Amino acid sequence: MGEQVIIVGAGLVGCLAALAFHKRGYEVNVYDYRFDPRDESTQDKNLRSINLAISARGIESLKFVDEHIAQRVLRDVIPMKGRMIHDLRGEQESQVYGLFGECINSIDRAVLNNFLLDELDRYGIDIHFGYKLVRAKFNDKRQTCIFSKMGQDGVTETVECDFVVGCDGAFSSTRYQMQRAVRMDYSQEYIDCCYIELYIPRTKQYIKKFNGNFAIAPDHLHIWPRHNFMLIALANGDGSFTSTFFGPWSLVESLTKSRDKTRKFLLQNFPDAMALMGIDDAVHKFITYPKGALMCVECNPYHINGGKAIILGDAAHSMVPFYGQGMNCGFEDVRVLMKLLDQSMGDRSVAFKRYSETRHKDLAAIIELAKNNYKEMSHDVTSTVFLIKKQLDSVLGRILKNKWLPLYTMVSFRADVPYHRAVEISNRQKVILNQLLRTMVATSTLLTVLGLSRFGTWTKKWFQ
Amino acid sequence: MGEQVIIVGAGLVGCLAALAFHKRGYEVNVYDYRFDPRDESTQDKNLRSINLAISARGIESLKFVDEHIAQRVLRDVIPMKGRMIHDLRGEQESQVYGLFGECINSIDRAVLNNFLLDELDRYGIDIHFGYKLVRAKFNDKRQTCIFSKMGQDGVTETVECDFVVGCDGAFSSTRYQMQRAVRMDYSQEYIDCCYIELYIPRTKQYIKKFNGNFAIAPDHLHIWPRHNFMLIALANGDGSFTSTFFGPWSLVESLTKSRDKTRKFLLQNFPDAMALMGIDDAVHKFITYPKGALMCVECNPYHINGGKAIILGDAAHSMVPFYGQGMNCGFEDVRVLMKLLDQSMGDRSVAFKRYSETRHKDLAAIIELAKNNYKEMSHDVTSTVFLIKKQLDSVLGRILKNKWLPLYTMVSFRADVPYHRAVEISNRQKVILNQLLRTMVATSTLLTVLGLSRFGTWTKKWFQ
Repeated sequence: MGEQVIIVGAGLVGCLAALAFHKRGYEVNVYDYRFDPRDESTQDKNLRSINLAISARGIESLKFVDEHIAQRVLRDVIPMKGRMIHDLRGEQESQVYGLFGECINSIDRAVLNNFLLDELDRYGIDIHFGYKLVRAKFNDKRQTCIFSKMGQDGVTETVECDFVVGCDGAFSSTRYQMQRAVRMDYSQEYIDCCYIELYIPRTKQYIKKFNGNFAIAPDHLHIWPRHNFMLIALANGDGSFTSTFFGPWSLVESLTKSRDKTRKFLLQNFPDAMALMGIDDAVHKFITYPKGALMCVECNPYHINGGKAIILGDAAHSMVPFYGQGMNCGFEDVRVLMKLLDQSMGDRSVAFKRYSETRHKDLAAIIELAKNNYKEMSHDVTSTVFLIKKQLDSVLGRILKNKWLPLYTMVSFRADVPYHRAVEISNRQKVILNQLLRTMVATSTLLTVLGLSRFGTWTKKWFQ
Repeated sequence: MGEQVIIVGAGLVGCLAALAFHKRGYEVNVYDYRFDPRDESTQDKNLRSINLAISARGIESLKFVDEHIAQRVLRDVIPMKGRMIHDLRGEQESQVYGLFGECINSIDRAVLNNFLLDELDRYGIDIHFGYKLVRAKFNDKRQTCIFSKMGQDGVTETVECDFVVGCDGAFSSTRYQMQRAVRMDYSQEYIDCCYIELYIPRTKQYIKKFNGNFAIAPDHLHIWPRHNFMLIALANGDGSFTSTFFGPWSLVESLTKSRDKTRKFLLQNFPDAMALMGIDDAVHKFITYPKGALMCVECNPYHINGGKAIILGDAAHSMVPFYGQGMNCGFEDVRVLMKLLDQSMGDRSVAFKRYSETRHKDLAAIIELAKNNYKEMSHDVTSTVFLIKKQLDSVLGRILKNKWLPLYTMVSFRADVPYHRAVEISNRQKVILNQLLRTMVATSTLLTVLGLSRFGTWTKKWFQ
């Protein structure tokens, strides 16, 4: 019989971790405070989603755990090759993500989660729903978890295991219990941004261009960037789009006081999106739907010495959704940990310690990148200088191939480049890019002054 | 009947808050998870103390709440007019704190706490010991606190009130409960420093110079600064000293593995202190006594809108002990909040909000100052440049009086200067001080070169 592990949380990362440990011969038990999301009667009604985009790190990690599962997941995704920027007049402009047509892939969180839960069932891994972790005691040999049973006031159940893996999200109880046993640095920071989920229904007619009932291109992530607020939309398999509004709390609080104000605001800023949503429905949802908060969580270390416990995914590094890396990074956590376990021949004590030591700089890097990307999505994508730099970056990437990698490419399409290395490489390239740009501007100015070239005038116009 | 307030925590800040609210006509109930520390059978045996030093902010706040209590507290303190630096040969050098003989005041945490508890009894304020807050629900009108009764497994008690004040320390349950209701930024950071409490007994003979049985001057805070570790000692009323060792965890862990290594280390680094402690006793305590961790806690906001709850003291801002401001700052919290309540004619909703808005920059400033002061106490106090600057700072302070205030003076002796202002003023003065110093060095160099003066050689020697 293998060592016994309790995995707290049956979300995406918890499920993948369960499969990975199971395949290594551990005896896995998964506990989740929610009820089975596959039961229609208990489905999550809190409208929390923000569609997911799975990219290289997520896919590689799925493959690492189970090639077959990865293939099955990829069968149902909607590839997105770029951003589609919508301006105030409804004009659309495509900005591709990759250098050679690489895509990120839109997927429904619930669909993916349910699929993974089915896989756990298929492998005979026990999942205990409705169990909320209320206390964990970390001892020399065996660990004790006390769960309260949801809906059964005051009923608790005590379970023992060899080690605990916390995959229970940003508000992790496992992490909280671990903090009683270990000196863990920890920070949580809310960013002044609230999100509201809206909806673009499928069209009635079949649109040949899109091969379906999509009202706008399904192979793009749609953005209506309006500087300090924005709207985005990601395609669902049925032709509809899940759309999300992001904006400062004060703006949302002031708007939602009045239907008229909200209606005017939405029509003024997102005219084409309102035509697709229906303004009445959008106003209704904007005012009545729950307002989500966005929080960054960072901590260190992630484990308790002696291989007694470890946290993965959002429990260890909740980030804002603007780089589309939350789940990808959580899946990568599993891959990184498993590799370390394999390297240490299953010595958890060594592997967990090494995980904390090596993983922190990568997690800190992606948390920061995600935070910065809000500005890029909501503002920079409309700036000429940004677009010129991006263009130049891509050109160099295409010409120099592996010798020049744009940041987005490294983060989203290159699972072999750790996040912190991606930032280092990108910073180096940024310096070169800026020098190149300065040279270009100087040259074009010179040419204009000399009256020698239309190129000069044309380049200068960009910078006005 | 006044509004009902539940104060969680009957420590120093909780007691002062209770008295302050009681005097404003509120109906106060205090709950603490510990048993009554005044009962001999339940006394706190965890050896957590680090003597306290009460200074201007603490004293002013006590006076603000109750002049009589302030007087009683000050009757039992031991004034300390400066630091006494002990070098490796046991030589001692006094560095005074104030410009005009101002003192900070050593006091025993337990004595002060018990005295305040007695005052609460005297005023008829109910204190409920052995009640641990496990859940708080914040509603529109009334707040609900659920306490578990210590030592009575599974027994809980539910209490209602108008608002909750959390004074339950660095690991505050109130704060944790509030985080479920409000978007609170929060960070906790451990510094790589462990502390161990040691002890210098009173001498048998009466030493006239000290007016008592003190082995070393009781009117100084004694420091044995050894760069990345140090020993300190504060006098107790009975002639003994509470001494504390501070050093990196790795050092302590490596030392405590061997009695011989510990003995050698202590004798080598603190020969005169060991002569006073007795080396066997010091080695025994160093190895067997609990090792304390030092943590900084910062958060924001401190309240829940609508005046439903607020946190004060360590619950809101745990800091390292190196500026001697933890309790002083916590007492000041009470004074600041009461002033805001008085200004808003008791409108908690307004006062709590204003408290969060205005207090954060002061708390952030003192947390940072306390962190930096470790370097000053353990290292800088032995540096010639530091001492020259300090000397110059003091000279300017004495000459210019209120127009030039050294940082330590503002923090410890001037309750009317908010912490963040103290930092601002000090930064401005630092620039001037450095300019002055540079001028002095240049002048002295010139004089030496010209062979004109012994002053030049003397000043230069300092900077070698």
